[in-house]
Amino acid sequence: MDRRKALKMATGALIGGGIGFIGIQKLSEPKYLKKKEVTLLKKVPNESDWKYYPLDPQKTAELAYHKYKEGGCMYSCFLSIVKQLADKYGEPYASFPMHTMRYGHGGISGYGSVCGTLNGAAAAISLFIPDKVNRDSLIKDLFRWYEEGSFPIFTSKKPLIDTQLVTSVSNSVLCHASVTNWIKVSKYKVSSKERIERCRRLTADVAKKTASMLNEFFEGTYLATDAHNKTTRECLTCHGNHGKLDNTSGDMNCTSCHSKSVAHKVFAKPHYKLMDKK
Amino acid sequence: MDRRKALKMATGALIGGGIGFIGIQKLSEPKYLKKKEVTLLKKVPNESDWKYYPLDPQKTAELAYHKYKEGGCMYSCFLSIVKQLADKYGEPYASFPMHTMRYGHGGISGYGSVCGTLNGAAAAISLFIPDKVNRDSLIKDLFRWYEEGSFPIFTSKKPLIDTQLVTSVSNSVLCHASVTNWIKVSKYKVSSKERIERCRRLTADVAKKTASMLNEFFEGTYLATDAHNKTTRECLTCHGNHGKLDNTSGDMNCTSCHSKSVAHKVFAKPHYKLMDKK
Repeated sequence: MDRRKALKMATGALIGGGIGFIGIQKLSEPKYLKKKEVTLLKKVPNESDWKYYPLDPQKTAELAYHKYKEGGCMYSCFLSIVKQLADKYGEPYASFPMHTMRYGHGGISGYGSVCGTLNGAAAAISLFIPDKVNRDSLIKDLFRWYEEGSFPIFTSKKPLIDTQLVTSVSNSVLCHASVTNWIKVSKYKVSSKERIERCRRLTADVAKKTASMLNEFFEGTYLATDAHNKTTRECLTCHGNHGKLDNTSGDMNCTSCHSKSVAHKVFAKPHYKLMDKK
Repeated sequence: MDRRKALKMATGALIGGGIGFIGIQKLSEPKYLKKKEVTLLKKVPNESDWKYYPLDPQKTAELAYHKYKEGGCMYSCFLSIVKQLADKYGEPYASFPMHTMRYGHGGISGYGSVCGTLNGAAAAISLFIPDKVNRDSLIKDLFRWYEEGSFPIFTSKKPLIDTQLVTSVSNSVLCHASVTNWIKVSKYKVSSKERIERCRRLTADVAKKTASMLNEFFEGTYLATDAHNKTTRECLTCHGNHGKLDNTSGDMNCTSCHSKSVAHKVFAKPHYKLMDKK
């Protein structure tokens, strides 16, 4: 290379802007340099980078319904919200390791604990609302709505199983109780395709509700409700952390597992040892 | 700038490697170029980019214990694993929106459903083991270990509350039951600092166990166990999806909420309607 040619290239790199710059990079291509550039330019996202943008609840429900087959209830509920933002806005949404959320199916790996749709919805709410008071308020409202509502309601425009399904009230946020209570009403088997369709539609219901709640929250129109139903509030008056006994925690519907009639009627006083495992 | 000086800089940029290259970039700094580089170089991580590297279980437990105060049980359990990898290997671990995991405290926003440490541990296992069979096997083993073990065991080198705590068996993966059963044994109040310390130590126990399990799994030495205890296996023989009734789902310890003695002894046959809500 003669001096004139080298000078031209140097001038191009210094004052010529982007094209000259990339040209030099491609000529030399020292691999360690590329790594260094990523480290320098990449910013680790923080809480405030996870902004929420309004979503169409009905579209969210359809997406949750149709993505259910890819990874179950928790996955498709969470994905129905975050994927829409990833498709429209890219990062940081696109880099969320979505596969992680598959663990929530069947109350976590089929164990029957918390309903996966609720676990996924709670994770999505927490992703966009880091503030503890607001986050917990929305999640509790959602959980109570789930406990008391009669589901599934959702009907897809392109249903995978085109049949009417009966609805049931779960009285619980637990997968085990929610599924069992629907089985009692519908008479279907747990392993039936109708039960799977019921959970798929329920996932759509929860995704739709979650998108609506997030929309309202970020619009400033969200009104929080009381997190306890009448019975639970009554139990927690003595058993909760502000009560005389202060011996239990949780906001779940107590009567899903406990009936106070036996212990409280017989002994006319709180007697939790006898109330358990009846 | 004279020709000799320009030539020297050009030669430096072309063959001198990183320092010369970065020097030119800093001189020109065209902003759109920076954006273009990020777009070109950044790769959206996929499942296989989330590699697990062996962790010291004891160090993991200490980290979980001391990070508990920043975001509770689910957060500190999950963070104790992922943060160590972020600190050592950077991306993609560093970009995980860790704040999300705060929702799991107290069985999800204090609702009392699945224990937050287990929710966080299950999420971490799922992040590194996308395969359904292996992931669910590890999670079920962890859940059963939690149900049957007597906790808390962990003692920190720098305890935040330096007192001995009694242990209890939860018989359940639910926060509500786990906490209540410890309260019965310890006689402390739910709102006491000792109960919080119990949950902090339990988080360390679960984090330690999870790191050990992941280490063994990726070393190829992990031996999966039977996910059901004797009673649950017996119940599922009829009630599970391979049973005659096929009317319930879940692997949780049944006797935590149900006692089969009433219905099964009186009616000498499965009678789930009477078994519930006793």
